[in-house]
Amino acid sequence: MTEPDALSLHAQLHGKIHVAANAELTEDNLTKFYTPGVAEVSKILADHPERWAELTVSGQTVAVISDGSAVLGLGNVGPVAAIPVMEGKAMLFRALGGVNAWPIVLSTQDPDEIVAAITAIAPSFAGINLEDIAAPACFEIEQRLQKELSIPVIHDDQHATAIVVLAGLYNATKLTSRVLADARVVVNGAGAAGSGIVRLLNAAGVKSVTLVDSRGVVSLDREDLTKEKLALAKLTGVETGGTFSDAVKGADILIGVSVAGAFHSDDIKNMAAQPIVFALANPEPEILPEQALEAGAAIVATGRSDFPNQINNVLVFPGLFRGLFEAKTSRLTDAHKLAAAQALAEIIEDPTSESIIPSVFDSAVVPAMIRAIGDATIQVEE
Amino acid sequence: MTEPDALSLHAQLHGKIHVAANAELTEDNLTKFYTPGVAEVSKILADHPERWAELTVSGQTVAVISDGSAVLGLGNVGPVAAIPVMEGKAMLFRALGGVNAWPIVLSTQDPDEIVAAITAIAPSFAGINLEDIAAPACFEIEQRLQKELSIPVIHDDQHATAIVVLAGLYNATKLTSRVLADARVVVNGAGAAGSGIVRLLNAAGVKSVTLVDSRGVVSLDREDLTKEKLALAKLTGVETGGTFSDAVKGADILIGVSVAGAFHSDDIKNMAAQPIVFALANPEPEILPEQALEAGAAIVATGRSDFPNQINNVLVFPGLFRGLFEAKTSRLTDAHKLAAAQALAEIIEDPTSESIIPSVFDSAVVPAMIRAIGDATIQVEE
Repeated sequence: MTEPDALSLHAQLHGKIHVAANAELTEDNLTKFYTPGVAEVSKILADHPERWAELTVSGQTVAVISDGSAVLGLGNVGPVAAIPVMEGKAMLFRALGGVNAWPIVLSTQDPDEIVAAITAIAPSFAGINLEDIAAPACFEIEQRLQKELSIPVIHDDQHATAIVVLAGLYNATKLTSRVLADARVVVNGAGAAGSGIVRLLNAAGVKSVTLVDSRGVVSLDREDLTKEKLALAKLTGVETGGTFSDAVKGADILIGVSVAGAFHSDDIKNMAAQPIVFALANPEPEILPEQALEAGAAIVATGRSDFPNQINNVLVFPGLFRGLFEAKTSRLTDAHKLAAAQALAEIIEDPTSESIIPSVFDSAVVPAMIRAIGDATIQVEE
Repeated sequence: MTEPDALSLHAQLHGKIHVAANAELTEDNLTKFYTPGVAEVSKILADHPERWAELTVSGQTVAVISDGSAVLGLGNVGPVAAIPVMEGKAMLFRALGGVNAWPIVLSTQDPDEIVAAITAIAPSFAGINLEDIAAPACFEIEQRLQKELSIPVIHDDQHATAIVVLAGLYNATKLTSRVLADARVVVNGAGAAGSGIVRLLNAAGVKSVTLVDSRGVVSLDREDLTKEKLALAKLTGVETGGTFSDAVKGADILIGVSVAGAFHSDDIKNMAAQPIVFALANPEPEILPEQALEAGAAIVATGRSDFPNQINNVLVFPGLFRGLFEAKTSRLTDAHKLAAAQALAEIIEDPTSESIIPSVFDSAVVPAMIRAIGDATIQVEE
């Protein structure tokens, strides 16, 4: 039983992070950390704001921001209930990436108000990690903030998950002797994660991607599509719709970012030989690994740590933000994401069906991510 | 030379605070701090948001917020240049009060936008310490946020400085055998600090307070008064104006929260016998202590640590917020402020002209403040 333990652990520690001083406070350094000495630092920053990463914590800190509208599998639980998740990410930023991060939750779910509030507090942070914001508002909010601000703004649910999925697919296709670009991929679930995955697979050159939402295939002939889903239908080029069961027939790869129990044994049986199944719904996957393997899946991944092949965005965000900070770039491009996925995949020297992706605790992950982001930044800027 | 040292110290430490984890991250506790275990904590908070102080860092953290419009003696230097000051306060909250605090600076100086942004991020914090926001916007912003939010919202420049000034006056009047309520007090400077001091002296029962701004005495016959200054004129009941020199004649107590060099020897000579002079402009006081003493002052206080009797709001804010958190109250009333000033004054058992106020490093300060706030809360609520 992890649940009662998690609650006691939080109660015992009073949360997961705290603010710590960088030095002991003495009579001598009080006058340097605070008035009058601090005025000198303020004066320098008034003329040279670019020195903030050297002189302030704000210049090295990620804000982990949510409106509480799509928290884990819990849904729209609001800002206070979202805090433990944002605080957990802040802890992981520190523990895994050595990056300062602070949780911010919002009392509004209105996109205009969210953009205004984040723009107002932006000078307090070196990067913005948007988190657990429901689709389709999440797409608009991310895009508007990226235009507005000169620091990295990344909706983790879209991009980090997609990077880990692509890394897993690089090794899974290698193991099943496929060329990823030529594989037929079905993505079930058209929220933030589904959108990010479809876009990144497209950028990776995968020619056949079919996106499915709760009403069936996201196709150009549908009249009920949101702006984002219409854009995705254009990207995948799927003209006419159909059901999930239709779409999955003969597919090489099935990726679920939807709900518990969405995949059945028959769906797996109807796929191509040696199918690859990523069932990423949390905490209960679309199909249990055992059941998928019995139905013929060659490789199965989930979002859970208690099964092999955990697709966890924790593999990405600490090193990704640290890499962007070190590369002094505010834009996360497709080139960055492809390089990050490649780097993650290459950490596994000899992939097996139970080891296509490194562990969260693999000390090679963060350095590889930083290097990949750095190299990609040089390429992008050349 | 503190200035170059302060800059090197900031550059060497990369700021003054960082985010630290409350426990080491292990494979076992990852599932409790993050998915899936954290969902249990979120579910509890969805039903019982009042448990946030026990379960999250946000429920125990003060946001130190500025728009950069009135930073120290530097003026309107904007948000980035304000960061070192806000971060310094956050460090002092931790070092002196054991309170978590995080710096937030804003890209807007529009009161409506500031109120909207702070309201939006309010669920992320247990208290709001407004800081270095220019008058008169600071008054409106504090009042609107106090109405809007159910957590303590305190503009430190108004209230903390006033509490320390009153504490110093309790001991200074005792030493010069005065009854504070009957003393004639002149306050020079009608910004945030001046307003807070006038209001608290009034609450303390001081009958004769004259406020002076750069145009002379703030009196009811003036037609150029802001809303706040008009309210202060009504409070002091001063009907007709005059110059600073007029006002100071025969006064017992002169408090400067204005600009360097504003007081001259002749002003001190024109005061009552054994006058009390608080010259609090930072970093250069209205008159140097040596000069004021030569002109006849019995007791002199400044804002500086290198002279005796430092009036520093650091004596107040760490213990004040911690006291409010422990007393589970969101309202800072006059009763709280009077109790806090009394408690601060009483820490000095045998006041002398060079020791009317405790040192920032006196370990009795924070416990006394917490106790005073707790006792006052019980009185207020009875």
